[in-house]
Amino acid sequence: MSERRYAILGTGAIGGFYGARLQKAGCDVCFSVRSDFDRVSQHGLTIESPDGDFQLPQVKAYREVSEMPPCDVVVLALKTTQNHQLSKLLPPVVADDGVVLVLQNGLGIEDEVARIVGGDRVMGGMCFICSNKIGPGHIRHLDYGPIALADYTPDYTPQGITERMKSIAADFEQAGIAIRFHEDLLLARWKKLVWNIPFNGLSVVLDAKTDRLVFDADSRHAVETLMSEVVRGAAACDRSIPDEFVSEMLVTTENMTPYLTSMKLDYEAGRALEVEAIFGNPLRRSQAVGTNLPQIELLYRQLKFLDRANRNSTAPSLRSV
Amino acid sequence: MSERRYAILGTGAIGGFYGARLQKAGCDVCFSVRSDFDRVSQHGLTIESPDGDFQLPQVKAYREVSEMPPCDVVVLALKTTQNHQLSKLLPPVVADDGVVLVLQNGLGIEDEVARIVGGDRVMGGMCFICSNKIGPGHIRHLDYGPIALADYTPDYTPQGITERMKSIAADFEQAGIAIRFHEDLLLARWKKLVWNIPFNGLSVVLDAKTDRLVFDADSRHAVETLMSEVVRGAAACDRSIPDEFVSEMLVTTENMTPYLTSMKLDYEAGRALEVEAIFGNPLRRSQAVGTNLPQIELLYRQLKFLDRANRNSTAPSLRSV
Repeated sequence: MSERRYAILGTGAIGGFYGARLQKAGCDVCFSVRSDFDRVSQHGLTIESPDGDFQLPQVKAYREVSEMPPCDVVVLALKTTQNHQLSKLLPPVVADDGVVLVLQNGLGIEDEVARIVGGDRVMGGMCFICSNKIGPGHIRHLDYGPIALADYTPDYTPQGITERMKSIAADFEQAGIAIRFHEDLLLARWKKLVWNIPFNGLSVVLDAKTDRLVFDADSRHAVETLMSEVVRGAAACDRSIPDEFVSEMLVTTENMTPYLTSMKLDYEAGRALEVEAIFGNPLRRSQAVGTNLPQIELLYRQLKFLDRANRNSTAPSLRSV
Repeated sequence: MSERRYAILGTGAIGGFYGARLQKAGCDVCFSVRSDFDRVSQHGLTIESPDGDFQLPQVKAYREVSEMPPCDVVVLALKTTQNHQLSKLLPPVVADDGVVLVLQNGLGIEDEVARIVGGDRVMGGMCFICSNKIGPGHIRHLDYGPIALADYTPDYTPQGITERMKSIAADFEQAGIAIRFHEDLLLARWKKLVWNIPFNGLSVVLDAKTDRLVFDADSRHAVETLMSEVVRGAAACDRSIPDEFVSEMLVTTENMTPYLTSMKLDYEAGRALEVEAIFGNPLRRSQAVGTNLPQIELLYRQLKFLDRANRNSTAPSLRSV
């Protein structure tokens, strides 16, 4: 295994799973842990997975990111709703020739990170995984797992497959995590939104799992027209998503085990929704080049309203069943 | 009072209120009553209203419309979700020179009625009223009450103010119900949709009363963009709705007593939603002349999904609080 030291910012369903796999494969991994600190620092992490359950009785847990040593790869796996903290969290933890790997959902996060750590120290990754945190330090990986990896530059000019992509991919692959290289980060981000925008959004608004959304004739119609607006948004940013990709996403969803999206899980737990990263940023980026995406706009407004109502209520969620 | 005999089809919040006022003023009124038949035939109707509470101890109640005598004015106040019955219900109850006054919400219902009773025997009315049925034969009128009245012809060519509009208006006004004449039924219908589409739709999807929808910044934005799509739909049908009308609707709503829309009440009671009349028909009419209304389309799909889920569930509504 490499000498690279990894920091996992956000030891939840995603960061906890990938970090645990990296440590199990022999990497040096530092975990930032907030609410679960006592449990994780004493008993480590428990991973359930169709690839094999395992336990890490001991992990390097840090209550504060500022206490971590400088790391070569800082895996950003916090919810984007925490990103207002990044300007404080990131600078001390990224080693001089280190890189921040943004594993968050949505568009334009790399730009925010680049403004903090420099445009040459950012990469993007998109996780295709169903994984939940089911208790303190306890993660249940359900399905999938690959990461789509791409390098970043401040204007999102495609960077091709860089050396640092290859070396980080080598660590992940040794840890049993499949990596797909993408030459164009912005295209890869828009492609991920083809799924995230309709399914995350409608799962909250319609109180439904993926299977009902894809098989009911009316929500299916809504999913398809929302997907075609994402394709238009990508085109406005000079990125072309082929029709076959959209059909593929639908077929993949039809074949999925029915599940609650991450946004729906956040909603049911009364947590802030990642509305700006997944909806607001793509809308603003499209509008800036003169393209309106009216259905995504309506869904965005609905989610902002529901998010506010949800967090103002005393009960965690008035609408979940 | 005139010699005209009135039939009220649907003795609910709207039909029951207007019918009771007409009878109180001396009109001959026949009420069709389904679920409340025993109660209404024995004890009549009870009306609470800011204009004065009153009781009609005796009314002509009919369990079946087919048992009614032919009537000069047949007031259609059923939910549009019952309209598949009209071809059976209407022909016997409309007198030879009688007319059907469509008091239902939505667009294009007059066309359906005209195909059954003939294009010269239909008029349209839009009710601006807050009224609920709170028990069997018991109606609580909360606010407003005027009816916008317009005459109909099969291609919706504006008919101006016709003699039969004046004579029916005279009866209603004697019963204390304000009538506003409209020369153009199609324009009046589209204007009503400026309010009904955003507020009925979003009240169900966002689980909210009118005040929250109009005062929250995000739902307000959604209301406004939906309203502007209704204006575009009207324009596609060669009907021009001035900007001031839209602003007026917003101010009116800001000043309203917060209330649940009729669609939200239907939803909470597990009743079928009037989605086709209020959303589907305007969408199809616009599409037929090449105009897409994407936000209304998304809202329509969401409502169809929620309506289906709501009526398939065993509880009356899983989401109401």
